[in-house]
Amino acid sequence: MKAIVLASGGLDSTVTAAVAKRDGHDLSFLTISYGQRHCIEVERAGEVARMFGIVNHLVLALDLRAIGGSALTSNHPVPKDRSEADRQGEIPSTYVPARNTIFLSLAIAYAETMDASLVYLGANVVDYSGYPDCRPEFLRAFEEVVRLGTRSGVEGKGIEIRAPLLSFSKAEIIRLGASLNVPFHLTHSCYDPSMSGVACGRCDSCRIRREGFQAAGLTDPIAYAEAGT
Amino acid sequence: MKAIVLASGGLDSTVTAAVAKRDGHDLSFLTISYGQRHCIEVERAGEVARMFGIVNHLVLALDLRAIGGSALTSNHPVPKDRSEADRQGEIPSTYVPARNTIFLSLAIAYAETMDASLVYLGANVVDYSGYPDCRPEFLRAFEEVVRLGTRSGVEGKGIEIRAPLLSFSKAEIIRLGASLNVPFHLTHSCYDPSMSGVACGRCDSCRIRREGFQAAGLTDPIAYAEAGT
Repeated sequence: MKAIVLASGGLDSTVTAAVAKRDGHDLSFLTISYGQRHCIEVERAGEVARMFGIVNHLVLALDLRAIGGSALTSNHPVPKDRSEADRQGEIPSTYVPARNTIFLSLAIAYAETMDASLVYLGANVVDYSGYPDCRPEFLRAFEEVVRLGTRSGVEGKGIEIRAPLLSFSKAEIIRLGASLNVPFHLTHSCYDPSMSGVACGRCDSCRIRREGFQAAGLTDPIAYAEAGT
Repeated sequence: MKAIVLASGGLDSTVTAAVAKRDGHDLSFLTISYGQRHCIEVERAGEVARMFGIVNHLVLALDLRAIGGSALTSNHPVPKDRSEADRQGEIPSTYVPARNTIFLSLAIAYAETMDASLVYLGANVVDYSGYPDCRPEFLRAFEEVVRLGTRSGVEGKGIEIRAPLLSFSKAEIIRLGASLNVPFHLTHSCYDPSMSGVACGRCDSCRIRREGFQAAGLTDPIAYAEAGT
């Protein structure tokens, strides 16, 4: 089946793409260049697409900085050195207003144009419990919007949203990715835009990634500015 | 209350803005410049915003032409001279994949940033029965997505979506607009991008508008290339 993968260049979306490929689907990538402070992600998404032999890779510019409201799209500082306990139970400042709703909407539009019946995204509720738009109930509600508000839905074809990593721990995601030969060295996770070429090692995203590789008993091939704690 | 108005420069969204203003809300405008073939709409939205004294008017560029799939964003011909019967019961080629889902997602993001609790849009199910994303059940499903997938929803503040013209006929919309002194001369409805300064008078949107003014017993102040039939 034809499938759209929301490919960010990060670890989770790259493992998600590998799962979609393993399942035998005909993949197209959609990358939203949303004025990330760390726009290196978009470059990495392109390298991942080449690695996967993707013919249709649409990079769509959308300047979410103009909307603001997040540490990832404005000049607010990215939080660092937060323990796992600190990261739980709140919506982090790196929450981008309605991001997954916006990204899924664009993916649905692309799926309709490409006549694809699946959309894959790398949402994960374990490590990102503070992001409301990574929860399963949100994804189900979004499918209902697609069923009622698109040509595909009305014509009964529908578009299924798949988030195969939704309930995986980071270690499980990394083990799965390793079994599927995911090019981890190409994936970018760091939230800090001031780092060039290396990851800071201290933001939430770097900490979750490092703890994940450690728990999986695997070596992270990317370079970090600071040694792990 | 603070409210976001999805302002397209068209007749319906301008009457919707007038309703929101009448209801005493503090308005911000959001206009999506989505690679419309008729980008005069975006200019007109700016003129309408000035007329309404709007301080915050965000014009967000999003190139939906890159996604394609619609006569409004590609080089497909815009249908002309269709009667009311011809216009019913099908999804027209001017359907833009997932447009209202995308626009509402962006409006919700802007509402979160502006701390607004209302989003107004000019969706209408009477004249646009063929567009699935103009139906009330779609709007209710989208509110559920907002409740589950945004910071505002999780924190219990919520964002209400209002489409005050949803079940109005075009004549009723025009009469309401006239009673609220809507600057109809600034509003643009024509789907045909090849017209400059005047409306074609023959596309679905022009025909619906002209029939509406006629039924309302009012004179449309804009210029048409061809006399009405």
